[in-house]
Amino acid sequence: MKTDHSKHQQTWVSNQWYVAAWDYEIDRTPLARTICNETIMLYRRFDRTIVALHDACPHRLLPLSMGIKEGDDIRCRYHGLLIDSHGVAKEMPLKNDTVNKRACVKTYHVVERHRLIWVWIGEQDKCDPDLIANFWPCSSEGWVFDGGYTPIACDYRLMIDNLMDLTHETYVHQNSIGQSELMETPINTRVEGNQVFVERWIPDIKAPPFWRDALKQDGKVDRWQICQFQIPNTIMIDVGVAPVGSGATLQKHDQGVRGFVIDAITPATKTTSHYFWGMARNFDLDDAGFTARFRKQQSGVFDEDVAVLEAQQRSIDANPNMKLKVFNIDEGGMKCRFIINKMIEGSPKQ
Amino acid sequence: MKTDHSKHQQTWVSNQWYVAAWDYEIDRTPLARTICNETIMLYRRFDRTIVALHDACPHRLLPLSMGIKEGDDIRCRYHGLLIDSHGVAKEMPLKNDTVNKRACVKTYHVVERHRLIWVWIGEQDKCDPDLIANFWPCSSEGWVFDGGYTPIACDYRLMIDNLMDLTHETYVHQNSIGQSELMETPINTRVEGNQVFVERWIPDIKAPPFWRDALKQDGKVDRWQICQFQIPNTIMIDVGVAPVGSGATLQKHDQGVRGFVIDAITPATKTTSHYFWGMARNFDLDDAGFTARFRKQQSGVFDEDVAVLEAQQRSIDANPNMKLKVFNIDEGGMKCRFIINKMIEGSPKQ
Amino acid sequence: MKTDHSKHQQTWVSNQWYVAAWDYEIDRTPLARTICNETIMLYRRFDRTIVALHDACPHRLLPLSMGIKEGDDIRCRYHGLLIDSHGVAKEMPLKNDTVNKRACVKTYHVVERHRLIWVWIGEQDKCDPDLIANFWPCSSEGWVFDGGYTPIACDYRLMIDNLMDLTHETYVHQNSIGQSELMETPINTRVEGNQVFVERWIPDIKAPPFWRDALKQDGKVDRWQICQFQIPNTIMIDVGVAPVGSGATLQKHDQGVRGFVIDAITPATKTTSHYFWGMARNFDLDDAGFTARFRKQQSGVFDEDVAVLEAQQRSIDANPNMKLKVFNIDEGGMKCRFIINKMIEGSPKQ
Repeated sequence: MKTDHSKHQQTWVSNQWYVAAWDYEIDRTPLARTICNETIMLYRRFDRTIVALHDACPHRLLPLSMGIKEGDDIRCRYHGLLIDSHGVAKEMPLKNDTVNKRACVKTYHVVERHRLIWVWIGEQDKCDPDLIANFWPCSSEGWVFDGGYTPIACDYRLMIDNLMDLTHETYVHQNSIGQSELMETPINTRVEGNQVFVERWIPDIKAPPFWRDALKQDGKVDRWQICQFQIPNTIMIDVGVAPVGSGATLQKHDQGVRGFVIDAITPATKTTSHYFWGMARNFDLDDAGFTARFRKQQSGVFDEDVAVLEAQQRSIDANPNMKLKVFNIDEGGMKCRFIINKMIEGSPKQ
Repeated sequence: MKTDHSKHQQTWVSNQWYVAAWDYEIDRTPLARTICNETIMLYRRFDRTIVALHDACPHRLLPLSMGIKEGDDIRCRYHGLLIDSHGVAKEMPLKNDTVNKRACVKTYHVVERHRLIWVWIGEQDKCDPDLIANFWPCSSEGWVFDGGYTPIACDYRLMIDNLMDLTHETYVHQNSIGQSELMETPINTRVEGNQVFVERWIPDIKAPPFWRDALKQDGKVDRWQICQFQIPNTIMIDVGVAPVGSGATLQKHDQGVRGFVIDAITPATKTTSHYFWGMARNFDLDDAGFTARFRKQQSGVFDEDVAVLEAQQRSIDANPNMKLKVFNIDEGGMKCRFIINKMIEGSPKQ
Repeated sequence: MKTDHSKHQQTWVSNQWYVAAWDYEIDRTPLARTICNETIMLYRRFDRTIVALHDACPHRLLPLSMGIKEGDDIRCRYHGLLIDSHGVAKEMPLKNDTVNKRACVKTYHVVERHRLIWVWIGEQDKCDPDLIANFWPCSSEGWVFDGGYTPIACDYRLMIDNLMDLTHETYVHQNSIGQSELMETPINTRVEGNQVFVERWIPDIKAPPFWRDALKQDGKVDRWQICQFQIPNTIMIDVGVAPVGSGATLQKHDQGVRGFVIDAITPATKTTSHYFWGMARNFDLDDAGFTARFRKQQSGVFDEDVAVLEAQQRSIDANPNMKLKVFNIDEGGMKCRFIINKMIEGSPKQ
């Protein structure tokens, strides 16, 4: 695989949905966040719908996120240009001046779904809500979902490589969740359209403590780990165990206890990213303490990844002539990058 | 208006005087300051005249401002080359060596006037003291003047835009001096040679508290605000009130109480500037407490501008393809930029 | 002399030995250090021999210095690729995978000599241990040697200029070791192959306190200072005194007390360097207190140089059109740079 070190080539796919925030991050006060090199601000209207506007006043470019909210509108902090929540100027700095109709702010299509806020990056008239990644466990009955946000100073694709290969757990996470026995089970990698799956089925084992506690019964189990990459940048990892003989298969496994590790890694710039992570589960639904403890643990595990990925990014920058090599374990990440690269070639430039 | 994002084009006018410091900042110890991309150091001779030299030893480029003062001369801290206050080498590192006459330091014409230190940037043989901005209230009988210095991380022209438009007071300074009634009075903008005026005459109003205290009488007043831009980078804002019927006009208004807000914004680099600000007044001349309190207040007001202008600069940098728009309120700043751009085209490159 | 401000031209000689560390800095835990723009890590095997490897895993470029030592091998912290101390992969992330023979890490020839660790930068097959600078006083019977390490943010050649001219002591070190009488003695500069010597012989003087204490007798002495530059970046300064009439000459002077100031300045990048410094002496050999005090003093003196050289580098960067001038005192440094430049032209590009 060839890592492109060109400073000019785009590294993400346009005309796609990118997670911009958690639902709980957005309220009536604007949040400023750079998504795919675009400075964007987000806030909620009174009716709780979400606004995503380019974060620069069309007049003198002051970030609108520094402005003063007036109902659903925002007034620029510099000269008082009033912009409504559709990006249209309503009032000039001098109130009697005729409103300059060219003084518009770019708006982004935005959807709140699966507890996350998705922004359409690319041609706004090509926007298609059906393309939002199917994070169904995050918003389905019988499931509970929580998670957090971590900024990370690396190319978002390094995190995709990381998540599509679970062998790194042994070393990166040797002080937390690393388990060398996982390494002994073969994995299967396959592509379905623009999705990549890395699957592992571990039959007839003693349940590890975490899963025994979730299952609340002893005895041998079948265990699975299924990483699912969806264009442009999301990964769901389906994990769980079911009692041996309960009929669970790699394809269908609702018999036991199940969780989904949820990941969306949104490019901020070429070498910085927003990492949204969490876990959805179908057990201990009312145990808020479990939710809080697991979120804390997951945050600690991802901090271990952040340390490694930021060091990797620095090393890539320091060795511009070196290319990343591909081993067997990288098959999943490589297939994701292949799809990403193919779509970048076919996608409009920002 | 088109904002030039070229990295190579000069953004200031050469062959002009730029304020390098306040008079009280310069003494016998050198002060190092970058003016229009040139590293300059300033100090006073025993006779209190001021020296402005390029701040790099002609030998190995160590900043001379790190050197050792010997009378009016300065000895480089590295090898001891002795430079006199006219930039000429007097003594080599080895005292018996013949003085190398090519070892000269560039000197800058420098003038102390109106309480400020002005340095000529450009061709030194074209220097003309008559071109110094006429800050007469800063050095006339019957007036008192004081002020301060604030470094600011933005293109100096953003501050000129800011000062030539007083509508921003309503929002930027809403917690300090903002007054929305000012917005209701029309302004007049006019150009006189290389000067730009933005004027506002507010007749027959109740004096605001600040001016009533200055005037020391009740009753209706006429009020004025006149911004005067002088090439290359200075602005004086003539403000005050006079009792109705005292004969004050927009053109002549010595009947009441009057102040001048004084501003000089000197480029350090393309995106950093030195902001020298103050106020001259013709009332309460002996009230040192007023001077101190006003200076403190003015500093706080300008800190509000700094926060906005630095955010504006960052947004301009983050959005290289966006241009600043011009509304009616920007007419003053736009006319200043027009004159600046015209003179840059005609001025020698540094 | 013309200072080359080109960003692309190499400023150091390839196919040479560069000091990477003190012997006491290297043990079984890897030390990461950038040498001539190459990220290198060093550690000792069980048998105390030293390993120098490129500090990037051939798989995904994570710095190997973050890895886990297993005997003499190192396992990458990311996916567990196991690399032996010759840079050859021994075990893949999945232990049963066939070892990828292209997954090799660049190794550097490394030699421990004269208490320092020398790494060969350039074509590894051209490596020649005979080219290591002859720091004989650092490893000879009858001598004791100690020193330290200081990172410095300047082009390594600025430090060579500094060390090859001892007149700067008067000013840079006026608060420590500066002595103006040294300036009155003429120096002689000569070139021998790729070595440059700057010599000063001061006959028949009262010994300064430091040397009187070392000599342990009163009376007149002859004193010498001989700076010796050896390609690519080392300097030894032979200093000492001998009683008048003891037969000491500039060429041969073992009659009194003698020390060598030892300097190696290794480029990290074009504008950052590693400074290894110390002193070897042939007197008070068993006085550990002398060693400790002198090391402390020497560290303080070099901190004075660091302040000046880093300011010089910043001034060079701020004045890209200015050239360093050459005075008589710079003859030594100029001759070193002449040899360096000539060898850079003839040396392979990295």
